Amino acid sequence: MGSTEDLDYPQIIFQYTNGFLVSKVLFTACELGVFDLLLESGEPLSSDAIAARLGTSPSGTERLLDACVGLKLLAVEVTGGGVYYRNTEISNLYLTKSSPKSQYHIMMYYSNTVYLCWHYLTDAVREGRNQYERAFGISSIDPFGAMYRSEEEMLKFMAGQNSIWSICGRDVLAAFDLSPFRHIYDLGGGGGALAQECVSVYPNSTVTIYDLPKVVQVAKEWFVPSEERRITFHEGKCQLLRRRVLVSCWLTWQQ
Amino acid sequence: MGSTEDLDYPQIIFQYTNGFLVSKVLFTACELGVFDLLLESGEPLSSDAIAARLGTSPSGTERLLDACVGLKLLAVEVTGGGVYYRNTEISNLYLTKSSPKSQYHIMMYYSNTVYLCWHYLTDAVREGRNQYERAFGISSIDPFGAMYRSEEEMLKFMAGQNSIWSICGRDVLAAFDLSPFRHIYDLGGGGGALAQECVSVYPNSTVTIYDLPKVVQVAKEWFVPSEERRITFHEGKCQLLRRRVLVSCWLTWQQ
Repeated sequence: MGSTEDLDYPQIIFQYTNGFLVSKVLFTACELGVFDLLLESGEPLSSDAIAARLGTSPSGTERLLDACVGLKLLAVEVTGGGVYYRNTEISNLYLTKSSPKSQYHIMMYYSNTVYLCWHYLTDAVREGRNQYERAFGISSIDPFGAMYRSEEEMLKFMAGQNSIWSICGRDVLAAFDLSPFRHIYDLGGGGGALAQECVSVYPNSTVTIYDLPKVVQVAKEWFVPSEERRITFHEGKCQLLRRRVLVSCWLTWQQ
Repeated sequence: MGSTEDLDYPQIIFQYTNGFLVSKVLFTACELGVFDLLLESGEPLSSDAIAARLGTSPSGTERLLDACVGLKLLAVEVTGGGVYYRNTEISNLYLTKSSPKSQYHIMMYYSNTVYLCWHYLTDAVREGRNQYERAFGISSIDPFGAMYRSEEEMLKFMAGQNSIWSICGRDVLAAFDLSPFRHIYDLGGGGGALAQECVSVYPNSTVTIYDLPKVVQVAKEWFVPSEERRITFHEGKCQLLRRRVLVSCWLTWQQ
């Protein structure tokens, strides 16, 4: 930064400026199921074939696919005069719905909820408060009141959080040696993906997911397998939950 | 891409996902006048001083400033227990309104118009058409009909395009030797920044800006100095303008 080269042609400014275009190309390709289709097909497909299968416009589809190639989310093969698209390894692993490491749900949450809230970032900085009201017509000082405005929205958020923990959870849990702790509380444990990673990394531990009653109900119903005996739940409501930012392990020493 | 390291922890996916957050931090800092204030003050300022001068919330301002430090758009100095922010060189040059190379206008166009249109990218790919109707309630097949829906909007777009040409114009014009051409038409020349670069790079040339009548009027009034005799205008309306994508020099050979 600040080198003569940067000052002549501010590459970094263009990169930042175009960031939202890149995000939306990725989100839209996920949402339309481009990566799922190419995984299922088992062979590269033409742009027209992809558009026909997804029910999307041929010209819009071709432009989206080419943008994905530029971002190395798709690869392109030219055979016999035809142009065919296929997933890259990283797309198969992280951008298809069926992959255990799928980031599909967090992408959808970012694309449909967070992106629109951030349209009002200037107002947020002026006013010092969240912008769910401008974005979605929901008046709530508590962001979780807005985020959990319906069971559907809550499910989307919890699935999104689980997507992230499926990648980062193991590293976070291994950053400190938690093996001396027999019983671990995950404050605001949501959909339970971190708890599941935890009982896997520390086989002698049990984990209690502490969260709002409605979150616990959804976690039990949708996310945490009932046969997982080492994960239990604690319904509650406390200020601590609101202050939770990133990692929320509250550890209790059990001799 | 596709290396083992990428596959274990898909840095590039996170980078793409977060792209829109980075864009909006940059746009909002520009819109609120953070970089202008720090240029004018001539000395580093605390977060509270910046919030007071801009009339923004202290907590929101501090978080925005720290995000800008992370992006190297601001630098931070810790003196006598206080934390003070100052512009980086690149911010002084490209993000302040008064700089000849200011990107302020294109940032505002991207932030307030393009960002919201791109919220509907999935619909755009499905339908194969622009999304001004969903974003702004404007029904127009012709994107310029929507972009130029008022003189104010047209001015913003033209100022934005001029911002870009102030950085890229010279390189585009020098990529080919245009010195044999005495008279150059700039199809869809808009606010005229490319034309102005052109008569500077090729001192023996004259340039005619060809654009819609209302664009020409605004260009004459706001952007192109009337004393610049080597730039003339041609009002017109043709399909070619709609097909213009990036570089639009239509060259006519004049012996």
